[in-house]
Amino acid sequence: MSKNIVLTGDRPTGKLHLGHYIGSLKNRLKLQDEYSQYIMIADIQALTDNYANPELVKKNVLEVALDYLAVGIDPKKSTIFVQSLVPEIAELTVLFLNLVTLNRLKRNPTVKTEIKQKNFGESIPAGFLVYPVSQAADIMIVKANLVPVGEDQLPMIEQTNEITRSFNRIYKTNLFPEAKALVPKMARLSGIDGLNKMSKSLNNAIYLSDTEDDLLKKVMKMYTDPGHIKVEDPGKIEGNTVFEYLDLFGEDQAKILDLKNNYKQGGLGDVKVKKYLFEELNSYLTPIRARRLELSKDLNYVWDVVKSGTNQVQNIAANTISEVRSAIGINYF
Amino acid sequence: MSKNIVLTGDRPTGKLHLGHYIGSLKNRLKLQDEYSQYIMIADIQALTDNYANPELVKKNVLEVALDYLAVGIDPKKSTIFVQSLVPEIAELTVLFLNLVTLNRLKRNPTVKTEIKQKNFGESIPAGFLVYPVSQAADIMIVKANLVPVGEDQLPMIEQTNEITRSFNRIYKTNLFPEAKALVPKMARLSGIDGLNKMSKSLNNAIYLSDTEDDLLKKVMKMYTDPGHIKVEDPGKIEGNTVFEYLDLFGEDQAKILDLKNNYKQGGLGDVKVKKYLFEELNSYLTPIRARRLELSKDLNYVWDVVKSGTNQVQNIAANTISEVRSAIGINYF
Repeated sequence: MSKNIVLTGDRPTGKLHLGHYIGSLKNRLKLQDEYSQYIMIADIQALTDNYANPELVKKNVLEVALDYLAVGIDPKKSTIFVQSLVPEIAELTVLFLNLVTLNRLKRNPTVKTEIKQKNFGESIPAGFLVYPVSQAADIMIVKANLVPVGEDQLPMIEQTNEITRSFNRIYKTNLFPEAKALVPKMARLSGIDGLNKMSKSLNNAIYLSDTEDDLLKKVMKMYTDPGHIKVEDPGKIEGNTVFEYLDLFGEDQAKILDLKNNYKQGGLGDVKVKKYLFEELNSYLTPIRARRLELSKDLNYVWDVVKSGTNQVQNIAANTISEVRSAIGINYF
Repeated sequence: MSKNIVLTGDRPTGKLHLGHYIGSLKNRLKLQDEYSQYIMIADIQALTDNYANPELVKKNVLEVALDYLAVGIDPKKSTIFVQSLVPEIAELTVLFLNLVTLNRLKRNPTVKTEIKQKNFGESIPAGFLVYPVSQAADIMIVKANLVPVGEDQLPMIEQTNEITRSFNRIYKTNLFPEAKALVPKMARLSGIDGLNKMSKSLNNAIYLSDTEDDLLKKVMKMYTDPGHIKVEDPGKIEGNTVFEYLDLFGEDQAKILDLKNNYKQGGLGDVKVKKYLFEELNSYLTPIRARRLELSKDLNYVWDVVKSGTNQVQNIAANTISEVRSAIGINYF
């Protein structure tokens, strides 16, 4: 049995935050020990809705790479690569576009939701509409059979499998494997506003690269129980972002239980719990921040990691495209 | 002033016929003396509506190359290349897709007409819908500023220019030139049925590679004047396919005028005129047929021409994409 292949990645539109950490990075640290893991910095996909703002994309390719390495992604175990530097992905995208109808793309629930969120109205960029096809090509260029995605991204994996099943059927091949979604048990992390999931665009994120000062300020602004006004008031744990974070990042379960009980009875102020959360988060983030600082002094090393990963994927991709050409029968000489 | 660059080509879905000769090949023989001419064998575009029939495409790449050389396309003057072997075209297609909206693509008159003709109904392959974007990439990968097209293809050139103007504006560059359509004066050649333009799919075509026997049979079946029943009957010239062809392929203008007068007055039978047309067409096609036969005995030479042209375009395309990456700002290292 050949090794399972994982494809995962991020759009480089900002530094990575705790939401990414909980939602995917933490999982990748485990996956890299078990599987052959490819992590794509999806600059081409980022351009589909940032085509008029390419500086954002350019700048964040490096930031995302720094975040990966800072957090413990090990280039010996995981292959980090840049999407736009693997032209075979575009080749495969163009060929896959023939295997999906316009109507099917318009029915894709993930894309439908995102189109609404982004207020494209009648002016949906064609590149945005077809990005699930590009995503199928991302996955299949390395023949990944495992794709870690959130619940809301399941339709993308279904779309990928529809396309590759068509390919395998029409061209009488078994070139492409079935892609399976790996849905993490973890729900999405709330932003510090407590109202939405953590997101760069909602300005409610704690970044892996935040300084101690920033971290403290953000924790102090964090949403708690709006009914918990005076210290003596009993407070709610449920929906209280500070306790949500303590459950995820706190090390001392017994102490957290004590704090919760105390908070519910009344007599424990928000500031005190927040200071504790700050300590816990800070001890979590300090080594990451330190590694990031270290790495940012040696950007040549970071670029070398990205280049070397990209080279590896280029070789795999050249091989996949050669097989694709043979399967279709357009291998002329 | 730099040399004008022409991009032209054909979908390899069949051998080329007299309609191609009159509509484009003849023109290309002139263009290659004046301009830098790139002739693309558009296999990727052919797959957009033949994805389930790739053998057709594969087989005809060679046939089309043979037709080009047989007809007098000179590899020293024109660069023949295969679309799928220039992956940069796919890269540019994917980037261009961000610069055009879905609605704009759906409004493209050429695509609208073709979608009706092909009876896609609600199942328009996404690849087919976006082929004007792929065409913009074909043209711009060699930075062509002249594109020979029929009247009905003018919207494609407009679409190309809209995309490249957006690119130049958004990325503050003048990388891409304005593409100008070169619309030939020649109307489309009728098929031998006299009802439609010559087309492989309508089974009314005379191929450049037809044998003498085939040619004779086809000329004898050719549509004339349905009211011209007996030799003595006066016949019509207008709408008479035999005379349409004589005007285009006959060498002896005086003789053709005599024949026309004779036919109009009555007393000239169809068979006689057809035999004359056959002679004229045959003397036109004999050297082409001979060169084709010669070339088909040396397929290595033909493939070498295609390979060498493709290599040239690969170099140009690599350079264009490098400029594109710089303009967008995704040239990371």
